Amino acid sequence: MMSQKLFNVAVVGATGAVGEQILKLLEARNFPIATLKLLSSARSAGTKILFKGEEYTVEEAAPTSFEGIDIALFSAGGDVSKALAPHAVASGAVCIDNTNAFRMDPETPLVVPEVNIDKISEHKGIIANPNCSTIQMVAALKPLYDRFGISRILVSTYQAVSGAGARAVDELMRQTKEIVNGNEVKPDILPVSSLPVKHQIAFNAIPQIDKFQDNGYTLEEMKMIRETKKIMGDESLEISTTCVRIPVLYGHSESVYVEFKEDYDLQEVKELLASAPGVVLQDDPAEQLYPLASDAAGQLEVFVGRVRRDLTHPRGLNLWIVSDNLLKGAAWNAVQIAEYIAIENK
Amino acid sequence: MMSQKLFNVAVVGATGAVGEQILKLLEARNFPIATLKLLSSARSAGTKILFKGEEYTVEEAAPTSFEGIDIALFSAGGDVSKALAPHAVASGAVCIDNTNAFRMDPETPLVVPEVNIDKISEHKGIIANPNCSTIQMVAALKPLYDRFGISRILVSTYQAVSGAGARAVDELMRQTKEIVNGNEVKPDILPVSSLPVKHQIAFNAIPQIDKFQDNGYTLEEMKMIRETKKIMGDESLEISTTCVRIPVLYGHSESVYVEFKEDYDLQEVKELLASAPGVVLQDDPAEQLYPLASDAAGQLEVFVGRVRRDLTHPRGLNLWIVSDNLLKGAAWNAVQIAEYIAIENK
Repeated sequence: MMSQKLFNVAVVGATGAVGEQILKLLEARNFPIATLKLLSSARSAGTKILFKGEEYTVEEAAPTSFEGIDIALFSAGGDVSKALAPHAVASGAVCIDNTNAFRMDPETPLVVPEVNIDKISEHKGIIANPNCSTIQMVAALKPLYDRFGISRILVSTYQAVSGAGARAVDELMRQTKEIVNGNEVKPDILPVSSLPVKHQIAFNAIPQIDKFQDNGYTLEEMKMIRETKKIMGDESLEISTTCVRIPVLYGHSESVYVEFKEDYDLQEVKELLASAPGVVLQDDPAEQLYPLASDAAGQLEVFVGRVRRDLTHPRGLNLWIVSDNLLKGAAWNAVQIAEYIAIENK
Repeated sequence: MMSQKLFNVAVVGATGAVGEQILKLLEARNFPIATLKLLSSARSAGTKILFKGEEYTVEEAAPTSFEGIDIALFSAGGDVSKALAPHAVASGAVCIDNTNAFRMDPETPLVVPEVNIDKISEHKGIIANPNCSTIQMVAALKPLYDRFGISRILVSTYQAVSGAGARAVDELMRQTKEIVNGNEVKPDILPVSSLPVKHQIAFNAIPQIDKFQDNGYTLEEMKMIRETKKIMGDESLEISTTCVRIPVLYGHSESVYVEFKEDYDLQEVKELLASAPGVVLQDDPAEQLYPLASDAAGQLEVFVGRVRRDLTHPRGLNLWIVSDNLLKGAAWNAVQIAEYIAIENK
């Protein structure tokens, strides 16, 4: 009989939108857990959560919370990760961080398992999970990058409100109800909860996700650019982005233009996508089959369709990439990394 | 005292979403009307409509409906225009056609007044109004085209359901109510009412507007390409498009990448847009100011923001273009053309 090593796991941000999905996945995947510790801010401490039929009480996360922890999954915001992940590392834990805190740190691998799983072994205690809109794009483009080379990517996103957290989901539902009942809406959270100006998201499209940078791009747009280069390991890759929030609850969609370095065959592109790990090709115009956020919600894969030759460039390709931003875009990518660590350390 | 010539005007499709806006605009603009004839399909004939406080009864449109008519505005679908516009022309009317029927006919000018008003005089009885998503894009890009030349345009759209007619508006509202009440939705109209497969539009993004063509692009996408080339009078202009329906009622948004022929100065681009006729520059990241469908709805102008250098090409520019698809995208563009005809013939 094979013995399996079990791990002491901590989930920081256990009561948040991503933390909730991480717990569901750890349970569904039967992750080899010895002990489970659920951590959160002071505000949510005391919350009771069921995991495999057992009730856990969420504790306030503190520097001392990580004694004996093997794997710590962080999704409680960048400030919490910056403050606590070093303590978790000092206690001997491997941290899988879902925030922006360490993604661009040269010491920290930024990992999408389908793309650069080999980077995990280089970690010095922290492995960063990329931004949701980045993950689904690189997962879909990787097999094409390997085969034809990519010189240039232009992407316009159609992002779900759940990417801005549970309060943004509540806000979209609240505004939607007000409008269908013929009432005025009072925007409260979006586009950026910490900024003064708020815009209606129900029945609207807001071309701002996160704060504006000096170059006129938002932080979300710059994250996609920087993270894609780092994950692909190619600083020469040219990327430009327009990130837009639309009234969808779960599932980011992306209209992506790719310019290959080499001539390509469209049929081969489709075959590469169809056989890529974690990618599902949904592409049959005759049957009106293409990825939809409504279909991708709740699924672990990245869905790709509308695969067609660009009409302005002989090596250009257009595609439509959709995935559940809370799953492959966050919780599932993190749990995939945790599974690799568990396998490597068994 | 100046005498003003008055015109006998017919509105075909008077009970439709665009026809309703045309009548509102003719009234608001105090268009010089001698007699007004409201026409529709047999199904809507008999409907009573108030215009300037007077009640009109909608009549069924027929080949004989146009006797004595000077200006006929068509927005009752391409088949109706194809069947009846030639009769209207034979009766001596000038037809302003809001459908796809004659747009690519070499004999028919395709006019956006801010772009190619000079083409109106070449008409042989019919002047075509372009597709909604085309109009707002060319109106915004024209001053930049004239100054720097444009070699290439890539656009991803975020289109409102009203572009698919009043039934699609009803469908979005109906589905939205079902979902906020926790019920299942049964898609009935979108993406294309005449095709078998229907998709949910509420809380979703559908990358299909109109039927697929053999090259993998939809008819809406090909319309944008062909019409932009014709309106700009430049067949060498390279354009690629991704057209997406999102759960917005009124107002199309577009993420547009433009590659200029000449080097450009970003400040000059903004100044050109700020002074362009029919265009409003809304671009102040520090104040979170950019165009929103919710602000553009009900307005006549084309709104442009997020104007910034592309990060992949030295002559590339990205912008965000929003306009009310039923107004500048349809009814207002048609009434603008009617006003030019009235002035020329007074």
